[in-house]
Amino acid sequence: MDTASLIKLVGLLKKQQLASLGTLRNGQPFVSMVLFAVADDFSAFYIHTSKLAFHTQDFLKNPVVSLMIMEAASANPDPQQLARISLSGTVSAVNAEDDNFGRAQLLYLTKFPQSEPLFGFTDFSLYRITPENARYVAGFGKAFNLTLASLREAARVSS
Amino acid sequence: MDTASLIKLVGLLKKQQLASLGTLRNGQPFVSMVLFAVADDFSAFYIHTSKLAFHTQDFLKNPVVSLMIMEAASANPDPQQLARISLSGTVSAVNAEDDNFGRAQLLYLTKFPQSEPLFGFTDFSLYRITPENARYVAGFGKAFNLTLASLREAARVSS
Repeated sequence: MDTASLIKLVGLLKKQQLASLGTLRNGQPFVSMVLFAVADDFSAFYIHTSKLAFHTQDFLKNPVVSLMIMEAASANPDPQQLARISLSGTVSAVNAEDDNFGRAQLLYLTKFPQSEPLFGFTDFSLYRITPENARYVAGFGKAFNLTLASLREAARVSS
Repeated sequence: MDTASLIKLVGLLKKQQLASLGTLRNGQPFVSMVLFAVADDFSAFYIHTSKLAFHTQDFLKNPVVSLMIMEAASANPDPQQLARISLSGTVSAVNAEDDNFGRAQLLYLTKFPQSEPLFGFTDFSLYRITPENARYVAGFGKAFNLTLASLREAARVSS
């Protein structure tokens, strides 16, 4: 990947707050909004969602999801040129008794301090999305297929 | 629906340029970015995409899609409060020889004049998404289930 595309990718994953989550709902695609925080090595994306929400009900039944993150609309006067990445992966719960719960919670709350009260709600839980591969579009006609290994490599060279 | 939520809904559909499209890819959800223009009566959402893109390949195989539109991140300091709508519907091609092609193309290009050259590309086509129902979240804990009839009614009262 060229350096300009790599810089954009790192910006997408680290600076954006919102992502579009695709789940399976009665066998059909369903897209909803989530807040996310990414692990330093890009190997995990954390979300904190309610069991009352459609998307949580969906991925608890079928953990295969898609997570799409795009550049802010203000980044380019031509919206078709905006950078975006569609990650495909699997969701698993991060429970309070798990070894990595504290670190994941800290990562999430450092990015979203206003969400702290939600950790006291019994319907909310922390979930980890482990990406298996991704389609990264750095601009019009400039697309890359990435693996978990190439995401980790992007994290390594940019840290 | 309360008036404040209705005003937000109309703003989402009319003012936003970008949406997240959910398709089925090998039986799994896949989310990507699209530009969209909505018909005045909210009964159709037009997109203009390339057959080289994953999402077009997906919906030509299986026309059931989800289209999610969210408020700009700048609209609220708490991203969890942003308004968003997840529409479920079906894609169909709008061909140049169809009666409504001219009107749909004009609607799309009025919103995205910079996309005019793409209408000369043979891999790009205009597609219509007909929504069947929608999940509209006007803010934290404020959700509505909408039908095509309620979308049309929202268009009528706001015009």
